[in-house]
Amino acid sequence: MPSVADSEPKALAFDVFGTVVDWHAGVTQEAALLAARHHIEGDWPAFANDWRSGYAPAMARVRSGELPWTHIDALHRMNLEQIIDTHGLGQLDEAERRQLNLAWHRLPLWPDTMAGLQRLKSRFTLTTLSNGNFSLLTELAKHNGLPWDCVISAELFGHYKPDPETYLGCAKLLDLAPQDLMLVACHPSDLRAARACGLRTAYVRRPFEHGLVTIEPAIESGEFDLLAENFEHLADLLRVP
Amino acid sequence: MPSVADSEPKALAFDVFGTVVDWHAGVTQEAALLAARHHIEGDWPAFANDWRSGYAPAMARVRSGELPWTHIDALHRMNLEQIIDTHGLGQLDEAERRQLNLAWHRLPLWPDTMAGLQRLKSRFTLTTLSNGNFSLLTELAKHNGLPWDCVISAELFGHYKPDPETYLGCAKLLDLAPQDLMLVACHPSDLRAARACGLRTAYVRRPFEHGLVTIEPAIESGEFDLLAENFEHLADLLRVP
Repeated sequence: MPSVADSEPKALAFDVFGTVVDWHAGVTQEAALLAARHHIEGDWPAFANDWRSGYAPAMARVRSGELPWTHIDALHRMNLEQIIDTHGLGQLDEAERRQLNLAWHRLPLWPDTMAGLQRLKSRFTLTTLSNGNFSLLTELAKHNGLPWDCVISAELFGHYKPDPETYLGCAKLLDLAPQDLMLVACHPSDLRAARACGLRTAYVRRPFEHGLVTIEPAIESGEFDLLAENFEHLADLLRVP
Repeated sequence: MPSVADSEPKALAFDVFGTVVDWHAGVTQEAALLAARHHIEGDWPAFANDWRSGYAPAMARVRSGELPWTHIDALHRMNLEQIIDTHGLGQLDEAERRQLNLAWHRLPLWPDTMAGLQRLKSRFTLTTLSNGNFSLLTELAKHNGLPWDCVISAELFGHYKPDPETYLGCAKLLDLAPQDLMLVACHPSDLRAARACGLRTAYVRRPFEHGLVTIEPAIESGEFDLLAENFEHLADLLRVP
């Protein structure tokens, strides 16, 4: 197999939740702030993980056709309603629930995200390729000043990752062959689906995606083109100064 | 009717060819450079206008269903082939024709574009809403360092402006009501179609869109929300420092 150094990708597509932004910290903090206002005590890191754990199953219901196309803001809200009482937040009113749901539009970056992306942008076209809805991704980018060249969401294809329509649709919108596009993600399942579509793949470690109690996913040696510790290291591996 | 000052739009969607970039200068210059290499003499400003004059009719064939969905790079190439001999460029080989066709990915900005957009970005979400294909708009933005928050193309909707699917699709992707979105364009027909969909409208004068021999379009008093001399003036009108 040719190495990445032999023929570089032309564009990098980034998974967002967990890969670019620290959803765990962002959701934990917004829940804790709202709870403090009401003098509610709770385990907000556990709340964040509970909320997130409904994400893949909800998308699976869309992917299977059980639910019609439903964007992530709506799936997040649906999942929030299912866990809000359990975590003692049942007294939040509609405006507060809506505000909490929009925590996903304001998530903080990992410490290496901005510096890494700025380096990578000098050489590659940078896009998102996320299941987050288009407006969520656009607001998240504006909130953080992310230097994307464009925003691409699963919403544009009416399919959620890991459906092949998303990876191939992204390449098509950028007018690239699949092998000229590299997916950057911290989730092996996402990368495996992209690889099956002919994309290049860069795995980035995000050991704290779910907070300090970390379970790192198992990956096989050689299954991805690049293994990076963070975005600065990814820029090093792609030999971008 | 409430004035823009009473309740501002949340996002600005920009027409691109003519409004943001000077296609006439860009195409004229790239044609002149290629011609000089072959010692071909010609009227390159007239060539640029001829090429552009095939643009709306080609899209009309797609809009009517006579042609299947065909993106702008392909329509530009089709139109180029129709005029290339007339302008004495018949000896250009395939690589040169392809290069010339990509002049539309490298068009220069008007002098006020960057300063105006940078001011407007501090207050509004900025997107393209252009008939240019997604990869063209993305490359054009990267080439010029345009500060879009996202790139939206007619390609995403499978409809060309002025079909309503484009204006309403843009608002939907941004999760905005039509009245929270303002189209910025130098073409009254585009603005009129947007207004019919409920968008706000800002007309920007671009007297040199077709070169120095200028015919300014007729507009009626009060038909658009704002009339701006350029993007800096638009920022003034929207009271952005």
